[in-house]
Amino acid sequence: MFDQSIITKLQQISGKDQVLTDKADLICYSYDATQKQYLPDVVVHPGSAEEISQIMKLASENKIPVFPRGAGTGFTGGSVPTAGGIVLGLTRLDKILDIDEENLVATIEPGVVTAEFQKTVEKVGLFYPPDPASLKVSTMGGNVAECAGGPRCVKYGVTKDYIIGLEIVTPTGDVIKTGGPTMKGVVGYDLTKLICGSEGTLAIITEIVVKLLPKPEAKKTMLVLFDSIDGAAQAVSAIIRGKIIPTTLEFLDARTLDCIRQATDLDVPAAARAVLLIEVDGDREFLDKQVAKVSSIVQPLGVVETRVADTPEQSEALWQMRRSISASLRQVNPDKFNEDICVPRSKVPDMIRKIESISDHYQIPIVNYGHAGDGNIHVNIMVDEKTPGDHEKAEKAVFEVFQGALELGGTMSGEHGVGIMKAPFLDMELKANTIDYMKTIKRALDPNNILNPGKIFPSDV
Amino acid sequence: MFDQSIITKLQQISGKDQVLTDKADLICYSYDATQKQYLPDVVVHPGSAEEISQIMKLASENKIPVFPRGAGTGFTGGSVPTAGGIVLGLTRLDKILDIDEENLVATIEPGVVTAEFQKTVEKVGLFYPPDPASLKVSTMGGNVAECAGGPRCVKYGVTKDYIIGLEIVTPTGDVIKTGGPTMKGVVGYDLTKLICGSEGTLAIITEIVVKLLPKPEAKKTMLVLFDSIDGAAQAVSAIIRGKIIPTTLEFLDARTLDCIRQATDLDVPAAARAVLLIEVDGDREFLDKQVAKVSSIVQPLGVVETRVADTPEQSEALWQMRRSISASLRQVNPDKFNEDICVPRSKVPDMIRKIESISDHYQIPIVNYGHAGDGNIHVNIMVDEKTPGDHEKAEKAVFEVFQGALELGGTMSGEHGVGIMKAPFLDMELKANTIDYMKTIKRALDPNNILNPGKIFPSDV
Repeated sequence: MFDQSIITKLQQISGKDQVLTDKADLICYSYDATQKQYLPDVVVHPGSAEEISQIMKLASENKIPVFPRGAGTGFTGGSVPTAGGIVLGLTRLDKILDIDEENLVATIEPGVVTAEFQKTVEKVGLFYPPDPASLKVSTMGGNVAECAGGPRCVKYGVTKDYIIGLEIVTPTGDVIKTGGPTMKGVVGYDLTKLICGSEGTLAIITEIVVKLLPKPEAKKTMLVLFDSIDGAAQAVSAIIRGKIIPTTLEFLDARTLDCIRQATDLDVPAAARAVLLIEVDGDREFLDKQVAKVSSIVQPLGVVETRVADTPEQSEALWQMRRSISASLRQVNPDKFNEDICVPRSKVPDMIRKIESISDHYQIPIVNYGHAGDGNIHVNIMVDEKTPGDHEKAEKAVFEVFQGALELGGTMSGEHGVGIMKAPFLDMELKANTIDYMKTIKRALDPNNILNPGKIFPSDV
Repeated sequence: MFDQSIITKLQQISGKDQVLTDKADLICYSYDATQKQYLPDVVVHPGSAEEISQIMKLASENKIPVFPRGAGTGFTGGSVPTAGGIVLGLTRLDKILDIDEENLVATIEPGVVTAEFQKTVEKVGLFYPPDPASLKVSTMGGNVAECAGGPRCVKYGVTKDYIIGLEIVTPTGDVIKTGGPTMKGVVGYDLTKLICGSEGTLAIITEIVVKLLPKPEAKKTMLVLFDSIDGAAQAVSAIIRGKIIPTTLEFLDARTLDCIRQATDLDVPAAARAVLLIEVDGDREFLDKQVAKVSSIVQPLGVVETRVADTPEQSEALWQMRRSISASLRQVNPDKFNEDICVPRSKVPDMIRKIESISDHYQIPIVNYGHAGDGNIHVNIMVDEKTPGDHEKAEKAVFEVFQGALELGGTMSGEHGVGIMKAPFLDMELKANTIDYMKTIKRALDPNNILNPGKIFPSDV
């Protein structure tokens, strides 16, 4: 039974309205995109770093686990309250505090929704590139905690590359500033980058200093259909070696195309066994030349068809194929295991072949698409949880997919993080002494292990 | 007296030839570019991570301080053996182990000289952008430890932005891999970025995985002379807002120009009170347009003269002004205090004015130049150490320069790090609890405080 006096103290800190204990309310904060469900004891929505500091001190003194939460869109359980305790909802801290147009730096609170932030800076001609699929819902705090990616990262880098300063609250309630608004800074350890991607296990993020870019003048989209995944992968390498770094270099594999053919009436020629969706951005007058150069680079590599958009509407039509994937997959099978391995770019075809053989072995559909420019593959293992044996087969397939990625010099996760979903597999990727090194940091910075416990590490730190 | 049995064990680990104890030899490893001198007890040049692991275990058991050292070109004393003990020279680990041309990733040892690395990758059409002034001598291990910068960082980012994996040896002798060759990876804490810029206080770097870019096709240089620093600073902002990120955006202030006029016969018109040296790179056919666009953007901002290079020889001639600075300064005064503050880009004129008033107050010449695109100013306080009072005045000026940078939202160091030189000022920039947080990490990862002790932190950790 959760101590009523803690509830009372939380109410004193953040106000009665901001403390939820009704089961109906708690359920809303019990899951994320993994659909794993754990009920918290209480949900608090603090209104300031100072309140969060008080809450962390209270939690620390009473050794109560605290689970920070943005919009709960994560794919690895990073925000689910696996040990009860307090869910710390950060959505009230949703202000864009400053946009410094002169220095291309914004200061924001963690609850700002990613897409809202992007729109706001674009209104003044600026640009925040990272674009995780969840961006219309996800919050910047969550994006920072997980180091979110997205299609544009091949050219522009991931969330971490844009975060130059933070205000954080430590597990013991200290409010600490890291980094700052300058483009360079080497005074002391880079705590900013340590917190980015630490999945809410080291600190609560209460303020974010973001580096922005000038918004590119224009973009141009093309879709190239290939007769093999090897051709598409060679095209990726050839484009980059041709000194063009496209904004996006998305690929769809043969089995994804089969699903789309089955589920939609989009025009996918039978000869097409892989697709690259390529977008370039920059100066308007230069884009046509870039598109022409990309076309001529890829042409010898088994191109079935090249489609180039001349208008935003045509661009949207080309994106349709990429956007239709999720709905198409659902028609194949209702449930999916969604992984996001990353391999060296040139190894994508080898990885796809490994996955195809895993799929064949277990007789479950696995379709792959993702960010070819980064080697970041979204592996979708399609199952019907109501079919006996499907779940177990998928679990074995996941294990073999990870194994395959690691054999190719890759990683289990390019974007989603570890959370609770990949924690059991952590020692497949990291040697025991690397895990120990990370745990040493966790123990030093969260001595009571109250902040998002049970995440990343497979056993207690 | 240093224990002879330790010497013997070091000889057993790395071979007799690799262990130096003669005073004449030790002196060579007693200083860096700061000219602060501390004699080590012994210098070892290990030949492998395995040897380093054994050395660290030996040092750990006997609580002997260890000072890792590359080429000793640092400006803050990061490699000087302030507490005697062992200097660990890493220059034997100088192999480029692999250049993966397909995936644009290189794996190298820490002793590789930066310029050699750049030349080697450029031979196969690739590009490693960071370009600290010391690059012909400095090693990549040192560059990573200090997170080196350089003129090209305004477009391409700093050393850290290119380091995606490391092999490190911990103070207790564990050999640990961090990161890897993939473009994305979010499994566990980002230890790679924690070690980058940690100034050799957390681990010995034994292998570096470097992300490369395709080498830009061409570059074009222009030099713009302005009638005020404000015009030059406005030009920097206007260029970037004009969606052009030049490769370099170097500035020289009025007092630097005065020195150059005095010391050289370079053509510096009297009306010029600031200079921007601007370089753009990319597709050859696009560069002329970029130069024209830059010219038209800056024209209304008090331009005295614009010089554009059409040939590599002309480009070299334009760089002459920037390259003549060091020799010119030396003619003004023999000794200098060399700082590298960084402020938000738009604050450069305010900072220059603050520095001018500090210079006037103490009656010592201070000349400023550096990376205007980053707001990173190299502040040169010119003194003659033989003139009584000069040294003390310079020390006061340094303090006020730091104070001024911090008041403008800046940092004490954009590139050089803290080392021993800025450690006494650390609490001017970082709050006590931020310093404590960093020390907590240091204590956890180096429990005996044997690795580069006395660096960064002003007092014992």
